[in-house]
Parts: sequence; C-alpha cells; structure tokens
Amino acid sequence: MDSTTLLWWMRDQGIGHVHTVAIDYGQRHRIELESSIRLSATSGSATHKVITIDLKQIGGSPLTNDEMDVPAASDNSQITTVVPYRNTMFMTAATAYAETQGIQDIYISPVKDDYSAYRDCRREFYDALESSLTLGATHNIPVRIHTPFVHWTKSEVVREGIRLNVPYDQTHTCYKGTRPACGTCDACTERIDAFKTNHTADPIPYAIDIVWHD
Amino acid sequence: MDSTTLLWWMRDQGIGHVHTVAIDYGQRHRIELESSIRLSATSGSATHKVITIDLKQIGGSPLTNDEMDVPAASDNSQITTVVPYRNTMFMTAATAYAETQGIQDIYISPVKDDYSAYRDCRREFYDALESSLTLGATHNIPVRIHTPFVHWTKSEVVREGIRLNVPYDQTHTCYKGTRPACGTCDACTERIDAFKTNHTADPIPYAIDIVWHD
Repeated sequence: MDSTTLLWWMRDQGIGHVHTVAIDYGQRHRIELESSIRLSATSGSATHKVITIDLKQIGGSPLTNDEMDVPAASDNSQITTVVPYRNTMFMTAATAYAETQGIQDIYISPVKDDYSAYRDCRREFYDALESSLTLGATHNIPVRIHTPFVHWTKSEVVREGIRLNVPYDQTHTCYKGTRPACGTCDACTERIDAFKTNHTADPIPYAIDIVWHD
Repeated sequence: MDSTTLLWWMRDQGIGHVHTVAIDYGQRHRIELESSIRLSATSGSATHKVITIDLKQIGGSPLTNDEMDVPAASDNSQITTVVPYRNTMFMTAATAYAETQGIQDIYISPVKDDYSAYRDCRREFYDALESSLTLGATHNIPVRIHTPFVHWTKSEVVREGIRLNVPYDQTHTCYKGTRPACGTCDACTERIDAFKTNHTADPIPYAIDIVWHD
C-alpha cells in the first residue's frame, strides 16, 4: 500500500525514469511479489527487478518462519514480526543494483506509524544509512535516500493515494499472505484503520466483515 | 589470509565465545568457503555459520560473473573486481545473525592496502556503518564494528600471523579459485608481496615459480 502510493506520488511529482525493485525475502505473503510486478507496469516504470535475499537463514521472525505464528494485532506483539535489519539489507541490495544502473536516488516509503516497532523506519536511521552507503559506494558519488512519507501517518498516505487514484484493489498488505486478506494481523489492522479514518471502503476483499462508514 | 590472521589475533587477545560467519556470495573461489569451515574449527570458534547472499543477481564484477575475465594485477584494473556494496551486505547480514544470537561485537579485517580500490575498507566507512547498524537494530543496543587491522599493511598482517603461528597453508586467497593458486591475479600478487616483504615463503603452492628469498 505504501510503496504503491509512493510510486503514484513520484509520478505526480514528475519524477521519471523510475526503476522498481521488489525483494523476495522468503515472505509468506508471496502475493506481494506478484502484485508489485503488475503495479510497476501499471505505474509506467521503466523496469522492474526482483532481488532475492533469503532472510530465512538468519531467522528471528514469523514472517519468514513457517513454524512461528503470525501474531494478531490484539496480541500487541508487533516486535516479534521484525526480521533483523530487513530494511538495511533491502536498501543496500537496491542501492547496489542502482549503482550498476548509474542511479543515485533511492525512494522508500517508511511511515510514521511504524516508528515504535521498527527503528529502521525513522529518518534518523535513513540519514545514517545514506552516509554509510555514500562512503561505501564504489566511486565517490553521493547516494540519496528519499523518504517522502516518513512523517506521514498511514491515514495520510491513503488520503494522498485516494487523491492520486492509486489502484488499491491491486495492492497486497496482509502478512498471512491470504486472499481475501485475513483482516486481523497487524498489517491488515493498520490498513483497515487508515481507510476507516478516510471514511472510504478498502477495495480489497477481507475474510471478516468490516464496517467502513458510520 | 586476513580473516584467518584476525581469528588467531582475537584468540591471542583473549577474546572468547567467537562465532564465525562465512558468506557464500556466488564467488568463483569456492575453496575459500571450504577453507573457512576448517579454519574456524582449528581456531576453536564456538560455531560457524554460512550465509548465502547471491550477488550474481546484482552483477558488475568478474568475481561472480563467469563471463567476465578476472584481471591480472598487471592490468591495473582492480576496480573492476568490485561487487557493489559487498562488504556492506556482508556486514549487515552478519550483524542480523549476530542480533539473533545476542552478539553486539563484530570483527572484520579490512587492511590499509585495500583503500584505493575499495572505499568500503576505510575506517570512516565502518564508523558510518556502525551508526546505521546501531540505529537500525531491533532494540536500542549499540553495535560495535572492530577493524583492528584497518591501518596495517598486508605485510604487517602477515608479520603478526607468522608470530601467532597462523596455519597459512590452510588459507585461500586466489580470486580465480584454483589450487595451486594462479599467482597472477590481484589477490595472489598482494599475498605474494606480503610474504616476500617478510622474507618468508608462503606455504601454499602456486602455478608459477616464485623466488621468496634474495
């Protein structure tokens, strides 16, 4: 949801020659990867690249470990879904690929709501990462990491997305990777809340009944 | 050679509970991975972990691309062997694994000679990486990256290794991945020079004749 809104936001800002990258990190929600291929094409991106990084071998999260249960949002245990340094590895791999393509500008869509559980969603982290990626580049050329939504809530992201006609019906969010979406995991709960705040029905189907409007 | 010396140096410093990590990044020189398993055990490390990160999909280097030639040192083209962000990805993966094991101290052995071609061998880079890994960690716990050889030349590393009885006969360096080592690639040339400076014969076999002493 956030990445797709970012893609449409970039188009609205007149940012061209966009190359999208999706990461296959062994996530249970494989639908996410299929969705990203379609959404990249729909948005008019120049190319789409899938980079495989097997986080299962590092472990520590039910998102990649079939033997661990994905917690319901009501468990208040979002921290257990964290794969250590997931964003750092994704950004490093994407920047390495970008370097081979002569690209210096990387866009990613962390949002304000993710701060508490995910320390690597803060701008402070991305500033430090920008420094280390610039210092670690093959040549002395600055890398810029853009996080336009970092101070936005998910509701604000959806509000912008509605304005931009983002095809949310094609996006996938559910951690359990089911279609219809489970509606109870942390990712579903946040998505549902973001649409509710905007008094708009989410166009994707859910396995549970949801009241979108008062 | 550098990693093995580091392992013996750590033992000499009384650093215990060492867990070694080798990265399988699709390198042509597979012997390096076999050597690391044996050397980890010989050094008395607690565990050895192989993490696979397929850098072939990112491309840009003959070290992982069978269709590109490994340059001879005389070509003065070491820069072409650089896989973008290789060290950044290795360190991030190793730190992610360390986090799952409750480890905060990571050791790596960049040396002074590598500065010119590899910007990610400078301490300045590791300082920045230390910051981003600390800010990107799941919990607010500092990560420390130790680079004890960063201001040493390869000759100084070998001098220390000779003092510590490092089993250099079990180490592998050649980029071409052959045994006997080619003796002409950049990695071989640097290794040979380091032993020559110490007026000592390298115990591994080479495919070319080498005069070790005057």
